[in-house]
Amino acid sequence: MSTSASPSFTNSPTPAGLSIIAGARSAAGEAVNSFASFNPMTGGELPELYHNATTEDVNAACIAAAQAMEDPALADDQRRGDFLDDIATRIEHMGDALLEFASQETGLAPTPRLSSERDRTVRNLRMFASVVRAGQWRRTFNDPAVPDREPTPRPRLRTHLVPLGPIAVFGSSNFPLAYSTAGTDASSALAAGCPIVVKGHPCHPGTGEIVAQCITAAARATGMPAGIFSFLHSGGGGARESAVGKELVTHNAIRAVGFTGSHAGGMALARLAMQREGPLGPDPVRVFAEMGSVNPVFITTAALQERGEEIANQLSRSVLGSSGQQCTKPGLIVIEQGPAADAFLSRMSINFAGEGSLTMLSLRIREAYHRRLMGTVALPNVKLVVRSRLAPPLDPDPHAPGLGTLPNRGPYQTVAALWRATAAAVLEHAPLREETFGPSTVVVVCDSQAQFPEIARTIAGTLTASVFWGKASLGELPFDPVSFMSILMSRAGRVIVNGVPTGVEISPAMVHGGPYPATSQPQSTAVGARAIERWCRPVCVQGE
Amino acid sequence: MSTSASPSFTNSPTPAGLSIIAGARSAAGEAVNSFASFNPMTGGELPELYHNATTEDVNAACIAAAQAMEDPALADDQRRGDFLDDIATRIEHMGDALLEFASQETGLAPTPRLSSERDRTVRNLRMFASVVRAGQWRRTFNDPAVPDREPTPRPRLRTHLVPLGPIAVFGSSNFPLAYSTAGTDASSALAAGCPIVVKGHPCHPGTGEIVAQCITAAARATGMPAGIFSFLHSGGGGARESAVGKELVTHNAIRAVGFTGSHAGGMALARLAMQREGPLGPDPVRVFAEMGSVNPVFITTAALQERGEEIANQLSRSVLGSSGQQCTKPGLIVIEQGPAADAFLSRMSINFAGEGSLTMLSLRIREAYHRRLMGTVALPNVKLVVRSRLAPPLDPDPHAPGLGTLPNRGPYQTVAALWRATAAAVLEHAPLREETFGPSTVVVVCDSQAQFPEIARTIAGTLTASVFWGKASLGELPFDPVSFMSILMSRAGRVIVNGVPTGVEISPAMVHGGPYPATSQPQSTAVGARAIERWCRPVCVQGE
Repeated sequence: MSTSASPSFTNSPTPAGLSIIAGARSAAGEAVNSFASFNPMTGGELPELYHNATTEDVNAACIAAAQAMEDPALADDQRRGDFLDDIATRIEHMGDALLEFASQETGLAPTPRLSSERDRTVRNLRMFASVVRAGQWRRTFNDPAVPDREPTPRPRLRTHLVPLGPIAVFGSSNFPLAYSTAGTDASSALAAGCPIVVKGHPCHPGTGEIVAQCITAAARATGMPAGIFSFLHSGGGGARESAVGKELVTHNAIRAVGFTGSHAGGMALARLAMQREGPLGPDPVRVFAEMGSVNPVFITTAALQERGEEIANQLSRSVLGSSGQQCTKPGLIVIEQGPAADAFLSRMSINFAGEGSLTMLSLRIREAYHRRLMGTVALPNVKLVVRSRLAPPLDPDPHAPGLGTLPNRGPYQTVAALWRATAAAVLEHAPLREETFGPSTVVVVCDSQAQFPEIARTIAGTLTASVFWGKASLGELPFDPVSFMSILMSRAGRVIVNGVPTGVEISPAMVHGGPYPATSQPQSTAVGARAIERWCRPVCVQGE
Repeated sequence: MSTSASPSFTNSPTPAGLSIIAGARSAAGEAVNSFASFNPMTGGELPELYHNATTEDVNAACIAAAQAMEDPALADDQRRGDFLDDIATRIEHMGDALLEFASQETGLAPTPRLSSERDRTVRNLRMFASVVRAGQWRRTFNDPAVPDREPTPRPRLRTHLVPLGPIAVFGSSNFPLAYSTAGTDASSALAAGCPIVVKGHPCHPGTGEIVAQCITAAARATGMPAGIFSFLHSGGGGARESAVGKELVTHNAIRAVGFTGSHAGGMALARLAMQREGPLGPDPVRVFAEMGSVNPVFITTAALQERGEEIANQLSRSVLGSSGQQCTKPGLIVIEQGPAADAFLSRMSINFAGEGSLTMLSLRIREAYHRRLMGTVALPNVKLVVRSRLAPPLDPDPHAPGLGTLPNRGPYQTVAALWRATAAAVLEHAPLREETFGPSTVVVVCDSQAQFPEIARTIAGTLTASVFWGKASLGELPFDPVSFMSILMSRAGRVIVNGVPTGVEISPAMVHGGPYPATSQPQSTAVGARAIERWCRPVCVQGE
């Protein structure tokens, strides 16, 4: 690796297009193929060029990360707290420039969408700073010695969590700040005392690099070893796009992987990580992959009767916000037929039909979304209630029934889709119980609420499950609400009562996880104080 | 499955030879092939016959376990505490009869070996009873609501651990009580509120069934659902021996697996569990496999000089106890050449040569041990210092150098082996850094203590690592003791200072785990209060 000394990682909203290896910009990538990011609002290429990280870059970043583990600054909870706080402050100080840059790369609005994402990113960094300083995260546990125990003395035992070592972080496409370079995986790993090597997401390489500059500057300012953080560019669709990630996951220095993205991507990394070979033999490591889910919502008829319109509006915003590109987007809404259901569906239809400008993050994501819509059209006992329209000339046949023709160039616009299915269709067709990443949801109209538990039991692992109760007595329901909650808890990492699943709170008790296929590690959470524990293991010291 | 009602699970030291499915003896197995266990002291078959569990038995046990999850008694911490305590009392009340039966099946002495194992089994059950009653094991975490937060109210979050569901437990060969039917996997899973299905180990089916009777009687006495516990026989070397385990691990009702045994066995189960298919699609579950390790011991020259003979005696007992068939047996002892090293080796030689009667658990284990010895003989720069002798006529050539000929019939006797290797040999030959299951250990004589850190860095994941310091100043060592401790902590689940690794304390802070290949789940422990967490995942309830 050849790196140029970069004295000034000022808080600049301008990416240099180069990977950052342990505090220095890599020049090695300059001769290799480079790539640009795209503006989803126009479909046009952005002017900045990004150089793919080389094999040498990956290796240098990982070796520097391993060396950083030896630095006592990394083991000091107070200093890591300062480091995390400093990252937060630097991201804040980037101000609107960061939001505008990120908006160009993602099509997400600077306010309130990206400003609130920036705020949660900063809050999350500060939460981990305070958790780390408080020290309880180490789960220290002492058993005192009992020297006079018979027949043998009992030795003193002291147990606490120790960091695993360097962590590879794969940022998400859909949250360029909160689940990317300084997002929950990155910040929780740093909180644990693990150096990180971040692979930037090709949808927003510039945003990633700007945040990487903030982290690099914060590491310098707080006296952290340079190897605590590296940032690797990869994209452009060539060989390096996937090679950088593979080299990173299989590098011997890497001790675990954080990933947020598709099921296929997460499981491919998990397999790769399980098959690693190291200098001492097989060296499997774990991938903590958060892979999205269907996020079912059950609404009792009492709730529909009491506040159906309010719930319809809440759920419409929850489905359509960020163009449905959220891992906790409600994908299945289960209600009971009747007048309240009709009114609810009618309000949802109006909301969906009126949604004018939905932009997706990338052509690849939009293609996958459109494939899912076409697959849903083909299912029996599932009807498209309404889809939104694109502005002409993009929507060539705005009066056509069904989905019509969707554009395959220009701005990455798409349509919102509201579906209606029978309970039988959902029980029969597994695809209806799988995630559709985009502004689409299926309303399941049951003959009776008595079918709710049966449907809940067919949901595979999901990040969230929600239920809206009526204010009336729960005793009038045709199922036991307590066992129904147990079914939801057996399927989900988080169960929401009278609320929507999107808008994951930055809060110590948060669980953002769940059984497979929502995640690859059902016993962990990607958000909340406990997220630190993914990057640690307990060690017991016995004796004096 | 056909079961006969069995009103009297009295505390009888007599096995019926039948699997126990949810509180009743299975009669289904009677027509199928049956098997006996063997007395390692004589090599002869024991009189009892055991009937392999049928596919129907496995299925019935798993379904009953899933049904038991619905019973509120299982969710009640106080009642589960009573259940665990009652199991402990019933095992105690079995008295010497249990120890004598177990001794016949394992060749382990009734006292003090098996009596102390029984005592730790009972202590462990009571520890979990008290941990469960105290309630902190759930790791409940509440974030209060902030209704007036801007721009949106903050919802209340309540997080706690919930049990995963039915757990399959594979008992170990070497600890018929402490790591088997009512051992640490079984008791920690029950503590978590998970029903268990135990596959009895074919080396000690009768001991397993006697303990299973205690658990069944305790479940009845404390009002637990019958499905909370089942016990399946499998053995005899026919198709059912491996089929019972496979059917169990791949049953849809099973949510995780506990295993203690060989590396090959643990990894085979882990692969099987990762490839499961369920009614809702792929359904991977985790195997918590504890697979043994080399357990290196580093002795500083100061410690050798101060108390070399005492350490040699401690380590000899640690290697030779239970005929070396302990997962924490020290397999690599690292010292520096010199007069103190010579004296240490001399004392070790005397201890090893004087070891007269070493009996192994099974012919299969003894064969594997002898293969390992032959492999070690063949390595360059490794010398057999001494081996113990078998009583004639079993040792046909007691005066032969080297290993001579080892018996392949009659009592399962074997020899203790003490090896001496150079630092270069250990660095070069990976087999010297792998577990030899049996009464063998390799003393590595380094040119200088400065080589200790280098050797420590080549140790793959291990359950334990030990170091003996001298009372003299640590500053006189040719390496930094603090970073040396860090290296050991990066390799092991438990680091022992001035003590031997065998004799795992039953204590809340204990960690019995470690990086791969010591375990398949490096972030967990099989012993101590935290062992419960293997069978749980966090769930957050958001809202009222």
